[in-house]
Amino acid sequence: MKFDTIIRNGTIVTASDTFRCDVGIQDGCIIALADNLFDAAEIIDASGPYVMPGGIDSHVHLAQPSGDGIVMADDFASGTLSAAFGGNTTVMPFCMQEKGTTLRESLKVYHEKAKGECYIDVSFHIVVTDPTGYVLGQELPALVEDGYTSIKVFMTYDNLRLRDDEILATLDSARSSGALVMVHCENEDAIRFLIGRHEKNGELAPKYHATSRPVAAEREATHRALSLAEIVETPIVIVHVSNREAMEEIQRARARGSKVAGETCPQYLMLTADDLDATELDGAKFVCSPPPRDKQSQAACWEGLQNGTFDVFSSDHCPFRFEDDQGKLNGKGKRNFRWIPNGIPGVETRLPILFSEGVGKGRIDLNRFVALSSTNHAKLYGLYPQKGTIAIGSDADIALWDPNKSVKITNDILHHGSDYTPYEGLDVTGWPVRVLVRGKTVTDGATLVGAKGSGNYLDRARSSLAHSRANS
Amino acid sequence: MKFDTIIRNGTIVTASDTFRCDVGIQDGCIIALADNLFDAAEIIDASGPYVMPGGIDSHVHLAQPSGDGIVMADDFASGTLSAAFGGNTTVMPFCMQEKGTTLRESLKVYHEKAKGECYIDVSFHIVVTDPTGYVLGQELPALVEDGYTSIKVFMTYDNLRLRDDEILATLDSARSSGALVMVHCENEDAIRFLIGRHEKNGELAPKYHATSRPVAAEREATHRALSLAEIVETPIVIVHVSNREAMEEIQRARARGSKVAGETCPQYLMLTADDLDATELDGAKFVCSPPPRDKQSQAACWEGLQNGTFDVFSSDHCPFRFEDDQGKLNGKGKRNFRWIPNGIPGVETRLPILFSEGVGKGRIDLNRFVALSSTNHAKLYGLYPQKGTIAIGSDADIALWDPNKSVKITNDILHHGSDYTPYEGLDVTGWPVRVLVRGKTVTDGATLVGAKGSGNYLDRARSSLAHSRANS
Amino acid sequence: MKFDTIIRNGTIVTASDTFRCDVGIQDGCIIALADNLFDAAEIIDASGPYVMPGGIDSHVHLAQPSGDGIVMADDFASGTLSAAFGGNTTVMPFCMQEKGTTLRESLKVYHEKAKGECYIDVSFHIVVTDPTGYVLGQELPALVEDGYTSIKVFMTYDNLRLRDDEILATLDSARSSGALVMVHCENEDAIRFLIGRHEKNGELAPKYHATSRPVAAEREATHRALSLAEIVETPIVIVHVSNREAMEEIQRARARGSKVAGETCPQYLMLTADDLDATELDGAKFVCSPPPRDKQSQAACWEGLQNGTFDVFSSDHCPFRFEDDQGKLNGKGKRNFRWIPNGIPGVETRLPILFSEGVGKGRIDLNRFVALSSTNHAKLYGLYPQKGTIAIGSDADIALWDPNKSVKITNDILHHGSDYTPYEGLDVTGWPVRVLVRGKTVTDGATLVGAKGSGNYLDRARSSLAHSRANS
Amino acid sequence: MKFDTIIRNGTIVTASDTFRCDVGIQDGCIIALADNLFDAAEIIDASGPYVMPGGIDSHVHLAQPSGDGIVMADDFASGTLSAAFGGNTTVMPFCMQEKGTTLRESLKVYHEKAKGECYIDVSFHIVVTDPTGYVLGQELPALVEDGYTSIKVFMTYDNLRLRDDEILATLDSARSSGALVMVHCENEDAIRFLIGRHEKNGELAPKYHATSRPVAAEREATHRALSLAEIVETPIVIVHVSNREAMEEIQRARARGSKVAGETCPQYLMLTADDLDATELDGAKFVCSPPPRDKQSQAACWEGLQNGTFDVFSSDHCPFRFEDDQGKLNGKGKRNFRWIPNGIPGVETRLPILFSEGVGKGRIDLNRFVALSSTNHAKLYGLYPQKGTIAIGSDADIALWDPNKSVKITNDILHHGSDYTPYEGLDVTGWPVRVLVRGKTVTDGATLVGAKGSGNYLDRARSSLAHSRANS
Repeated sequence: MKFDTIIRNGTIVTASDTFRCDVGIQDGCIIALADNLFDAAEIIDASGPYVMPGGIDSHVHLAQPSGDGIVMADDFASGTLSAAFGGNTTVMPFCMQEKGTTLRESLKVYHEKAKGECYIDVSFHIVVTDPTGYVLGQELPALVEDGYTSIKVFMTYDNLRLRDDEILATLDSARSSGALVMVHCENEDAIRFLIGRHEKNGELAPKYHATSRPVAAEREATHRALSLAEIVETPIVIVHVSNREAMEEIQRARARGSKVAGETCPQYLMLTADDLDATELDGAKFVCSPPPRDKQSQAACWEGLQNGTFDVFSSDHCPFRFEDDQGKLNGKGKRNFRWIPNGIPGVETRLPILFSEGVGKGRIDLNRFVALSSTNHAKLYGLYPQKGTIAIGSDADIALWDPNKSVKITNDILHHGSDYTPYEGLDVTGWPVRVLVRGKTVTDGATLVGAKGSGNYLDRARSSLAHSRANS
Repeated sequence: MKFDTIIRNGTIVTASDTFRCDVGIQDGCIIALADNLFDAAEIIDASGPYVMPGGIDSHVHLAQPSGDGIVMADDFASGTLSAAFGGNTTVMPFCMQEKGTTLRESLKVYHEKAKGECYIDVSFHIVVTDPTGYVLGQELPALVEDGYTSIKVFMTYDNLRLRDDEILATLDSARSSGALVMVHCENEDAIRFLIGRHEKNGELAPKYHATSRPVAAEREATHRALSLAEIVETPIVIVHVSNREAMEEIQRARARGSKVAGETCPQYLMLTADDLDATELDGAKFVCSPPPRDKQSQAACWEGLQNGTFDVFSSDHCPFRFEDDQGKLNGKGKRNFRWIPNGIPGVETRLPILFSEGVGKGRIDLNRFVALSSTNHAKLYGLYPQKGTIAIGSDADIALWDPNKSVKITNDILHHGSDYTPYEGLDVTGWPVRVLVRGKTVTDGATLVGAKGSGNYLDRARSSLAHSRANS
Repeated sequence: MKFDTIIRNGTIVTASDTFRCDVGIQDGCIIALADNLFDAAEIIDASGPYVMPGGIDSHVHLAQPSGDGIVMADDFASGTLSAAFGGNTTVMPFCMQEKGTTLRESLKVYHEKAKGECYIDVSFHIVVTDPTGYVLGQELPALVEDGYTSIKVFMTYDNLRLRDDEILATLDSARSSGALVMVHCENEDAIRFLIGRHEKNGELAPKYHATSRPVAAEREATHRALSLAEIVETPIVIVHVSNREAMEEIQRARARGSKVAGETCPQYLMLTADDLDATELDGAKFVCSPPPRDKQSQAACWEGLQNGTFDVFSSDHCPFRFEDDQGKLNGKGKRNFRWIPNGIPGVETRLPILFSEGVGKGRIDLNRFVALSSTNHAKLYGLYPQKGTIAIGSDADIALWDPNKSVKITNDILHHGSDYTPYEGLDVTGWPVRVLVRGKTVTDGATLVGAKGSGNYLDRARSSLAHSRANS
Repeated sequence: MKFDTIIRNGTIVTASDTFRCDVGIQDGCIIALADNLFDAAEIIDASGPYVMPGGIDSHVHLAQPSGDGIVMADDFASGTLSAAFGGNTTVMPFCMQEKGTTLRESLKVYHEKAKGECYIDVSFHIVVTDPTGYVLGQELPALVEDGYTSIKVFMTYDNLRLRDDEILATLDSARSSGALVMVHCENEDAIRFLIGRHEKNGELAPKYHATSRPVAAEREATHRALSLAEIVETPIVIVHVSNREAMEEIQRARARGSKVAGETCPQYLMLTADDLDATELDGAKFVCSPPPRDKQSQAACWEGLQNGTFDVFSSDHCPFRFEDDQGKLNGKGKRNFRWIPNGIPGVETRLPILFSEGVGKGRIDLNRFVALSSTNHAKLYGLYPQKGTIAIGSDADIALWDPNKSVKITNDILHHGSDYTPYEGLDVTGWPVRVLVRGKTVTDGATLVGAKGSGNYLDRARSSLAHSRANS
């Protein structure tokens, strides 16, 4: 056999197995797993690091407009570059439907933003903000056929939220077309009520972001989303779960026979509401929704990663610049927490954090790391088996991880567009030292090797969720 | 001591105690509990029956307009008469705010309806359907001071439901004024979605009332109401709970430290969704909301009466005539379940059913019967100690119950305005054989003794709920 | 009407009601509740304090031998005297079967100890330590007929514990004879294992008493006792529950349909394992089993008193002297925690603590105080309605409580035989200022008025437990 | 590359992945996964069936004496032959310590039974029935070093059960030596009590086997085992779980942070207690412990296989002949259910049932089938990565499954020593059509190809359990 590339002597890790062999790659695909492969144009020695499927980050925001002149800190170029340096080979950004426009029109906009810009592969979830009869009845079914197989709805943010009747109609359309629905679960009315109370009391500092979005508001919306999905009999994904109470809603829904996937993110493992209560306005750096909670919630989220409450671990990368009047500290944001744009950067730090705190500290094993960081994303969102594993026929999307490399995370070593990282100063052990997308090296861990525009857009099959939790 | 009336030789039952003695009554109040009282104008022998506090039915609908020309089958006269024959001495009907009017204006209407008509005492809950700034900011606080200490909000029915932001504002006003909030918990949007689906499928028979209002829609709204109340820190009452899942929401809320009262009704102990699937349109007789569920739900509701999940047992009396084009089988209702008016009669059968099925079958003891049928209502809604017990100083509102009297319930023995009872043919053992309101006999079990207009309107104190479930 | 005694103008509190009136007493019984009673030999003004049923402490140890020359600090005289000063009118000590003897023989011994010694009424639970065929087949049924209607079994203490087969046989006999079974739930083998490990490690201080009896050992035995009772279909009482996990076992058993009563004690509300870790050997003062746990467990126990997990609140008074070689610091006890006798005094402080921390701090209301301290004990153990309430025909066992009296608890104000109180220095508000047993004043709160020997032994009816939680 | 054998063109299934390629085998190991392999002595076409890791059945009983002259229906020859035809490549029988002997002595006996007899690979769990100081202190640590890394203890059967103190000592030794402890959880005393009651009532038919071993007895022992393991901090395996209540104990233990594996078996998916109530004595065919329960329990067990409550699915193969006075219907067994030997055959039907009812009916996917039938057994019991997967370096233990082959299970197509199967007449779809152990075909699905004695004994590493559920 002849190969374009051989990764030699590595310890291969999949979601279930760990074994040593060479990996033979041709035309961007894995075509051989065996000992003693030779005869290749490129031979990569992997006798030290782990050879893992490249990370898939199924929850990132890139180049989205936020209104009020706020500008997101990453476009598709910087976002996918940062992702690559963080060990990822695919990211799934959102295409936001602008109200009054169709989904196709919105997709056109985002495809144009992405075109020729990406360093790694990308695929879009569509955010449905205007679920008209045309959108749900005509567009969505056709888009699913075209490979746009997941959508997202919001229960919060005044301009994005859908009312229950709109959610029901959207779920109904998703059920018949086979789209998978991601839901951001927070009760908008409760949040507005609490923001109003804070404002009345003159409580305007960043820390009130956390108290205006309490666990009860997340738990309520989670249970409601699950109940509506139960009524319509549609699988859903509860994204960015921050605490035990919301986790229990997922568990209860599954016990009732519902098909539900769960996601959590690094901020819910590493940050707490205390971080929002920093000196000056530094708390603004940690403003995201749902907000980080407390130490008990962190422990709960780890438990959920271990016991299967969570299927996927994503970044919810949503980057803004801090010292920037188009960012966190825009004119209004400086004066009142409600105007601080919600979101934090994290696409580059997601996997080192999960590796170091998870695998390194014995909370999860290597196979679970692969499942949470890659394989389950691919299965959940219809990219498997093209993506998400190291197996014959799959794309050669591979990250080499040095489990012993110690790195202090600081913003200056990162490649995103933000001017800070919420994890400044965090010491991690374990780092991606080489990342290949379809067999081509994008980064060797230190420097960029790949080319802008080499990332592809990915059409997707329907989600495996309907199958994986069947109850009959 | 001299008395107007002595009840002699009875077995007194209170919410905690059972003991034999005479009861001395003067000026409508109980002034002595002792052996061997004598010297009274009237002496009632009670050596056979139990002497219990008269029933308080805190959830009845009388003389409410329903729109579309539908007419409720009971006015204040027939409703309170029927209640009296069912062992009750106080009922609490609703005063419905008409949209665009103030609460005071609505109260005026209902006071006029009730004036001079009542056979037993009454007090109103106010249904808030139009929570304007004036209503919540000005009227409600003043009304609470005037003794209108409970309100009700609906999460279902298109014309009555409040949105979450309105519920939050109402709870907030209730918290500061001290009003107790009752909530009808069903998710209106989910119900409309399911009705729409049934209509699309041509499924129009009464039985589809049940499937269009599933447990999930009730559980969802219950959890939402409890979450909103948790966020505002306001005690609430979850009324007419029909199943275990909604019960668990109450239990979970209490475990989180919330102050919540729970209510169930006879229809959830005795009927099931199968009753709606009767021949012809007979199922319409059982159309109420939430709908009756199944045998397991009945068992769950009994469990809730035993273990304290439920504090009160009410009728949710909401009577319509069956064979009547202003009733259940109005022109539209005959053709489509969604136009059948929701509600069933039950104010007269509530207590015999609880006594026979509860006490008689060993599910609850006599003291729990008194708590569920009377004392807890009085405490919950600010009528205690004037009402709800047999104790020195309390009103002599007393029902004598013959525990051995067997009765077959048929509509012709009842005194309500409806032309049917959902419990037609049910055999019960135990029946109220004499009912006194403020010391005056209203009925001897067989015939009417009291006079129309002898019932008083009752101002009330604030609810005990804030105190009874304190968690500190 | 003529009376021996009238308590005038008091606020009467029962397990469900609160009302003002006079109480007329004759021949030791309450015969009238009314306003304006007069004509009595003795008139007690009660216009200030609450008039409550005297406390019933259904879990006290008096004059029990403990082996190894250890002597209990209270006999029947000092124990009942101390109880009276603590607001109690009945206590229920244990009669311990000595192995190799019959229950009748053991009863004879304890009746002799009690005879002529008691200041208030008493009734025995029999501890079954040697459940021979004769004991279970012949004696127990006859004793139940004679009014000995409750027994206790131990799952811990090497010399007392019964094996599962013995517990099953005992439960089976209890089911057919109608005896109620109290169970001390801790897994003896687990405790011995942990004691052995501590000894091997040279860990011998009092604080290791707590770690040698962990929550898991209590939860395990609680679940086992409940499972054995479920298999035999016999009601049981889980005594002295110390933590949330054991509470959940009770709740789960009830949800399965079992009849179970629960008890907790002041030490689980007021002490923690930290108290055992005092300087010198002072920790020995807090050695009791199960040991006090932590702050979260205290909160859980309060929750259980509020929500009905616990039916009764007892002292588990089991007094030893501290500085005494027949007490806590006997020769062996000084050197190794395992030889410190288990038990603490508390019969006199039980009710002031519950009143001050419970009623005074808004955790429970007055009626719940009466239920937990008196009425439920009477109902559970077959003393009701003779004892446990203020109602016509009941014994005039009454405690007058001054809700505003502030007292600092110190050992020198107490009347027990121990030389310390675990609550030394605790400030409480609310104190019993007069205690009457069968109409006779035993103490006026400050001084002894009653006479030794005036307390009666009480035969009892069967427990109400079978009725009160019926599930059918 | 040259190979001894190539499996060509198959669909490979692992616990996480599914992909098409050839498998290259040399010296009994998998050395290549790739397309277009050639150059092998033997080429097996696999373009139709699935290529899966051979089944590992970690819970089988072979050639164990049962006392009373009862003879097990399978020795190592027939048992491993039957296993091979059922798609297995490794079985793990028990080596039973005879009381009064050492573990080494017992192992010697079982090694002699197995020597030269096995068609597939085997490895022993040691049943500890006599946990002397020598056994626990000396033997067990040395045996673990020698590769005997799992033991089993019984909480039931009079002659096998350990008392709690013995279980604690055994767990303690296992913790320090690294042995994994399997526990059979049923409360022996409760069972004896119920057997005694049945006998007293003359209830002797096979169906009383089920009622004498109720869910409560299993739930109790499960919770006790988990509590003892929690106290000693030792991972355990709860074997043959039959119902939801026992499953909840596993879930609760994990939520407390314990490391627990769970197992269920085909009898709990396919049989119910009704099967024991057959005409004549046919019920004896279904006597096993715990007994099969009901339809709800079957659904619960499926749920547990889906949601991870169960890690492994085993047969608990424990075969007896039916019409045989050394089997089910021995002299005493005919007359009284308690003498019917406990156990049913199942090693050959385990996987076809899981495949047909699980994969075929959409309850689990192919990867979960592999995890439950093979991979998780290997990881749990220290055989991974040598066994349990298809990966480079692993033994070529492979089963080819034709997913479309329909078979009616009848005893005459099976290869075990029993004269019946509890699944007589069951139609399944999906059957193992070729089984290779270390690269050598043992059966082609129809006929035996392998040789007696070709199975190896396997030394094992320590369990992965300590790592896989780490909670920190």
